[in-house]
Order: sequence, then structure tokens, then C-alpha cells
Amino acid sequence: MSQHLRVVATIPTAPEHAEAVRAGLRDLVAATQQEEGCVAYDCFESNAAPGTFVMVEEWASQEAMDAHMKTPHMAEVFKVLGPALAGDVAIHPLRPLG
Amino acid sequence: MSQHLRVVATIPTAPEHAEAVRAGLRDLVAATQQEEGCVAYDCFESNAAPGTFVMVEEWASQEAMDAHMKTPHMAEVFKVLGPALAGDVAIHPLRPLG
Repeated sequence: MSQHLRVVATIPTAPEHAEAVRAGLRDLVAATQQEEGCVAYDCFESNAAPGTFVMVEEWASQEAMDAHMKTPHMAEVFKVLGPALAGDVAIHPLRPLG
Repeated sequence: MSQHLRVVATIPTAPEHAEAVRAGLRDLVAATQQEEGCVAYDCFESNAAPGTFVMVEEWASQEAMDAHMKTPHMAEVFKVLGPALAGDVAIHPLRPLG
């Protein structure tokens, strides 16, 4: 069984879009948690940076994560996030400290 | 018992400092994991952004995290990180998606 893949992503959005982004991310989380290779997939808001959302993810394999990136619900959330972004989305596939 | 506190932090460093930073973060993780209120404390490297380290933390309480910030091993790691930083350290105390 290939190594689980852990990912952290940070998504800075403009506060005036917060409600639309929250709704979009709630739908994304609900759909993603049903995906076969999804081990954990949680969305948080940052208490230090209003408008910044943080995804904490764990995937059964790279293939599972790649399939996730091509799902309709990912395409859908990018439509919501597009006009709301206040900076670059940072997606960090994690490897243990060397 | 107060609510556990989850934190994600991203630490961008200049690649030429990578070895010193890794050593400093290894020491930090080892010391922090011994702290009473530390539920989980892990350090990763980003596969997408060379030189960026990601902390994934869970604390038994805000008090536990506050005490951590004042420990000698935190003071020590800031000495190592100071000259190595390639951008702002982002510390995100997390709250569930609203």
C-alpha cells in the first residue's frame, strides 16, 4: 500500500467574499470526504488572518489526490474562489522533516 | 476541560540555511513533544515550496500553547530562524469552518 500523503493548503480570501467562500468550502469538504482515497479532509479558518482558510488533508495515495484535483466539486470551488482570492493559494504536499 | 487548539504554521526559509533550520526544528519538535499540554506537534517540509517548513500542532488549551511560546527551546529556534527566513512566518490558530 503506497505511503499516505498529507497536505496543508492556505487560501487567502477577501473578507467581503467570506460567506460565499464558506458555503463553497462546506460543499467541497462534504463531497471530498466521500471520495474513496480520502483519509482526512478538514477546512478551518485562521484566527490570526481573517479571510484565510486552511485545509488539512490526508490521502491514501498520490493517485487518490490526483483524482481529487479533477473532480467536479474541485472545479466548482475554483469558480467560487476565483473572484474571492486575496493572494496565492499555497498547496503544501508534506514530507517529514529531513 | 477547555477545547483543544489546533495550529498550522508555515515557515519560509532560504534554502542555503536548510541544514541549520532542519537541525533547529528537530530539536524544537523533540523538546516540544515533551511539554505537558502538547497533544501533537509535527514538522514537515513542503514538496511544493523548497525551504518552506510546515508545523501541524494540537494543544490541550490556549494556556498550554501560551506556555510553549515562552519556552527556552522556542527562544532557541528563533535564533536559528532569524537569519534564515525568506518571508513572514504565518501562524494560524485554527477554528472550524463557520
